[in-house]
Parts: sequence; C-alpha cells; structure tokens
Amino acid sequence: MTETIWPRRETRLIRFGSLGVGGGQPVRVESMTKTDTRDVEGTSQQIQRLACGGCEMVRVAVPDEKAAEALKQIVARTSVPVMADIHFDHRLALLSMEAGVQGLRINPGNIGGEDQVKAVADKSLEKGIPLRVGVNAGSLAKGGKARPQGGRPLVEAMVEAGLREVEILERRGVKDILFSMKAFDVDVTVEGCRLAAQYCPYPFHAGITEAGPVPEGMIRSAAGLGILLAEGLADTIRISLTDEPEREVETAYALLAAMGIRRRGPVLISCPTCGRCEVDLRPVVEAVREGLREMSSAITVAVMGCPVNGPGEAKHADVGVAGGRGKALLFMKGQVVRSVPEDEMVQALLDACRQIEDAS
Amino acid sequence: MTETIWPRRETRLIRFGSLGVGGGQPVRVESMTKTDTRDVEGTSQQIQRLACGGCEMVRVAVPDEKAAEALKQIVARTSVPVMADIHFDHRLALLSMEAGVQGLRINPGNIGGEDQVKAVADKSLEKGIPLRVGVNAGSLAKGGKARPQGGRPLVEAMVEAGLREVEILERRGVKDILFSMKAFDVDVTVEGCRLAAQYCPYPFHAGITEAGPVPEGMIRSAAGLGILLAEGLADTIRISLTDEPEREVETAYALLAAMGIRRRGPVLISCPTCGRCEVDLRPVVEAVREGLREMSSAITVAVMGCPVNGPGEAKHADVGVAGGRGKALLFMKGQVVRSVPEDEMVQALLDACRQIEDAS
Repeated sequence: MTETIWPRRETRLIRFGSLGVGGGQPVRVESMTKTDTRDVEGTSQQIQRLACGGCEMVRVAVPDEKAAEALKQIVARTSVPVMADIHFDHRLALLSMEAGVQGLRINPGNIGGEDQVKAVADKSLEKGIPLRVGVNAGSLAKGGKARPQGGRPLVEAMVEAGLREVEILERRGVKDILFSMKAFDVDVTVEGCRLAAQYCPYPFHAGITEAGPVPEGMIRSAAGLGILLAEGLADTIRISLTDEPEREVETAYALLAAMGIRRRGPVLISCPTCGRCEVDLRPVVEAVREGLREMSSAITVAVMGCPVNGPGEAKHADVGVAGGRGKALLFMKGQVVRSVPEDEMVQALLDACRQIEDAS
Repeated sequence: MTETIWPRRETRLIRFGSLGVGGGQPVRVESMTKTDTRDVEGTSQQIQRLACGGCEMVRVAVPDEKAAEALKQIVARTSVPVMADIHFDHRLALLSMEAGVQGLRINPGNIGGEDQVKAVADKSLEKGIPLRVGVNAGSLAKGGKARPQGGRPLVEAMVEAGLREVEILERRGVKDILFSMKAFDVDVTVEGCRLAAQYCPYPFHAGITEAGPVPEGMIRSAAGLGILLAEGLADTIRISLTDEPEREVETAYALLAAMGIRRRGPVLISCPTCGRCEVDLRPVVEAVREGLREMSSAITVAVMGCPVNGPGEAKHADVGVAGGRGKALLFMKGQVVRSVPEDEMVQALLDACRQIEDAS
C-alpha cells in the first residue's frame, strides 16, 4: 500500500480465510455474484473471473437450501474467500458455514430468537468465520418500526439499529465483526459511517447501495466512497452497479488508484483536449487504453494533445506522448526522448510501456 | 439548492456576466470547448449544446489572434458566459475582453512585466470581468524553477505559486478573482485546496486535471471533487474528460445529484442484482434510463430486482418497479400501487413518471 495523506481509522483486524480486513490491512475490494447461486458452474466461473480482476472477497446470495448446498462446490472451486449473504433464515446460515464459506452476512436481529442467534454465533466461533452485520437505509422500516424522516434522525436510527446487531453478537462472544452502514444517499452514508466510527471498533464494509447503472452508479459510488476513503472509514469496499460484477471491481481499483491508495495495473492520464489541440486524441487514447489492458505493472502513462505543454504537464507520467502538427513527442518522466510521426504514436508509446513492463 | 450536511466555505461573490459564483451561490457547472476556436459555427454550436445540458459557463481556448477575433461572434451567439483561456500572451487577453467575454483565465505572472499586467488588470476592471488564476501541478516547473518532489512540498509550492498570481492582481486593484488549484492526483488537489482555503477569500474553480477517458476520468473526478464538495471547497466545477464536453456536464450533474447538492432531472436508483434476482434487470434499467431522458423534473425513480425487498429498500423513490416471477410491482413512496405483467413494467413505470412530470 502506498503512503497517502488520508488518515485510517484504527480497527480490529479480522480474517476471512487468509484475507485480513481492517487493522492496517490494505483497503479490500469486494463484489457480489449475480448468477443463480444454485448454478454451481456459472457462479464459480463468475467468481473466478472476479478473482482474476483483483476481487478479494465475493459475496453470494443464499436464498434457499439448494443455494446453501451449492456453496460447498462453489467454495471448493474458488481461490478467494466467499461470503454467504443470508436474509432472516438462520438455518441457511448454519448450512452455509457447514459448506465452508469464509464469511457470513447476516443480521442476528432478524433471524428469530435467542436460540437461533446462539446457534449461528456458536458455529461462527467454532469455525472462525467473521460475520458482517449492519444496516441499509432502505431496510430500516423492517419489523414495523416507523422510519424517521430524512436528515439526522434517519442517520441516528441507522447507527442505533446497526449497533444493536453488533451488541447481539458481542453478547454471544463474537468479536470478528465487519460493520456496514449503507444508503443510496451519499450524505446519509457518510454521516452514518462517521457516527458509527465513534462507537464501533470493527472494520467497515463500505458502499453506496443501489447506486444504479453505468455511469451514474460509478459517479455516485466514487463520490461517496471517495469521501469515506479520505476519512479512513472504509476497510473493504464494494461498488454496486447494475452491470457485470467485473465492472464493479474495475471501478473499485480505478477509485483506489485515483486516491493513491492502491494500484492495480497501469494508470492513464489524458488531456480533455481544447481549442489548442491539433490531433484527434480520443481514438489515440482508446487505442492506448486497449493496449494497456495486457499490462499489469503500475506504470503511469500519459496521452496529451499539446506538444508545447504536454510533456511538462504530464511530467509525473513514467511515459507519454504529446501529439500535434503531424508528429508526436515521446517523453519519459517529462523528458522528450524522440519525435515520431503521428500515425506511429500509439505503437511507440505501447512499445515503451512494454519495455518498462518487461523490465519490472 | 437543497439543504445538505456539507459545509460551504465563505467566499467573495463574483459575477461572470449574470452568473454568480461563490458567496453562497449554487455550485456552478463549467466545461470547455474542444473545437477549433476559429471555427465560429462549430464552437458556437458546441457551447449551445453545453448550455442546453445545463452548463453554466464555457471556457474557450484562445491560442492566437484569429481565435480572439472569433470570440466576438461566438459570444454574441451564446446564452452562457464565455471565459477566454489565455496562455502567456497579454494581447490575446485584451482582444478577448474587447470581444465581450465574461471571464478570463490567465496567470499574470507569465504574461510579461508590469506594463502587461497593468493593461490586463485595468481592462478587466473597466469591463467588470473576473479573472481566474491558479496553478496546475504539472505546470509548476515553468519559469525554470525546480519542481519539488511529491507530497507536501509540491502542495506548498503550488499554493505559493497560486497565491503569488493572486497578489499580482490584488496590487492592481483586482478583487473579482476565481482561484484554482488542480492536479491529476486527488490527494495533491485536495491538500492544495485545503491549504489555499486558509489564505484565499476568493471562490474556487475545482477539478482534476487530465483525469482521462470514460470511465476512469469520471471515477477520478467524482472522487476528488466529491471530497472537495464535502468540505465546501468547490464553488464551480469542471469535470475533465477525454470525451465530448457534454459528458463532462452530465457527469458534473450526476455528481452534484449524488451529493444531494443540486438536481437536474430524474435520478435513477437501481439494484445491482444478486442471486435472488428473478428478472433480467439490465435491459429494464436501460429502457427506463432512455425514457427518463425526455423528462426534466427532479423525480427519483427506482428499478429493483426483488419484489420482497424492492419496494421497501427503495421507499425513498417517488416511483419504482420491483420485478420477479413474471410480474412486477409498481410502487410509489414505498407503497405498492399495483401489479403489472413483467413485460409491461417499463411502460407502467414511465407512465407514472410522466404523470408526475406533467403534474409538476
């Protein structure tokens, strides 16, 4: 993890299988499968694609016993921790833990009475499985309670409800808890996490719920999680998008890279172009972007539309091109290396990237 | 403007034509043309498209005298304030102001000596044209000064350089100043603005420079500007994308809506789907999104994949659908209104949106 200016809240370190969360570990990247969990083949493949994209923990919905049974094979086929997502039914939680999941998302306050809670807590302690508890703003009305109207009362009600879930587990001796406090509204989410952080020693799973499709969901999630990351209030993040889960993971890494918190692969700087630009930059950027997909090292690459200002403006890039008037300058760390014809700029840049990639 | 939890820095109110910036005005949305400024027709049309999308001020590069001359016709044809973007050449600044622009982006420290600064300052005072000054991290080396290496010294050098520009103007009696402090790195940008805010009474133009193409540039900009907006450090924003400028404006409004700061048109909530989802939600969301493009009122619309949890989870939506098992529930403010066949859910939702639109 890079040194950053952002503080990080001190939390308990918990472990989902071999994955440490909180306690100074890097901010983790999560996603959730969108397949039918009973489809072992499809679900396992989706998890494996997510893992290849850098996803470090995958949540899987468990709506019925068949899904819980499928978990056994799914867990056996995957290389990252699996978290079972359970609503209301403690038997599904027990079955999922028996199936070998490394984490469980459940709210003990809605799975029945003391016996059910004890059974789940005891099993989680026996198997060393952390539990994620917490509240989504939208779920607050469950159980017949009146929902507070907007602003601060809603946030306080959310945090109270979330901390009640924590206390139920603590009374049963559970300490490996991941806490979440999520809403569609960025302000509600941020206020909720800020308030909960005052009372809660456990790491936070952070996200913006039902953030929507691409690109609005990306924008909303990046804004909300950007603030939480800047305040050190996110220990593991999930970008919620109505899209392929792989895009959730790509978005998470783009966000972490933008914040200077974690890097995965190249980062692309490109100028927005303006009335000074003498080259059609968008196809150049797209071609460079495609070429960079094959590279995994953390190089910073710039594509600039201005030979006068470009190399200087992007001097923090490891390598870059600045085009204009039929030719382009290839530069490294702000120093011009050579001039190439405009139609060779993409190849020249990618060749230079490949050299750095091979040397690293 | 909506009530939000975010503080807002107190700043001087300045006016670009009729557009107030700072001093408690709504956060403004800017963009920049990507056409050749000498192309009056193309540039005017791009500005008008931006204005229709809600862009409130448009910056235009002025690389030469022909571009400065074109401004006269461009300004006459556009309904939003135009800011001329000048590098180094004070004559272009004078010509642009004569051409009728409502704002000027220039750094007086690099346009020559005292005479040039006086000429520009006097003309701006005479015409009541505010000046934007400030620093991009990449431009710091200009003028032969060594660039500090990373972290705090870079930020301090940026702020010092920016405040020097401010002082040059202040000595000439200019008070209508818009200040900017931008970098590709979110942390550098945020630290720069935080530090500058301690010394600078002027409103801030905020953005992340060369943020890149879609979607990375959106994610980077939303994260950086999200933090600045949360701290009240942005008075007018520009999303920099290597893409059509219209997308910059859409992204800006999506960000402001996500933060609860400003709304322009509908907001779409949609669940990411999971193993519980019984309907192919993405095409539904896409169809709803398309339909909503024609509506302008600030309705919140939800598309959920779960009839059990959907209406409750999205009860803050004005109207929504929750699909599953061949039918869908239409709900308003969390209350189920009626059930419709799955293949009619898009139309039923859009009809309900249209009713709200027509009534508002």
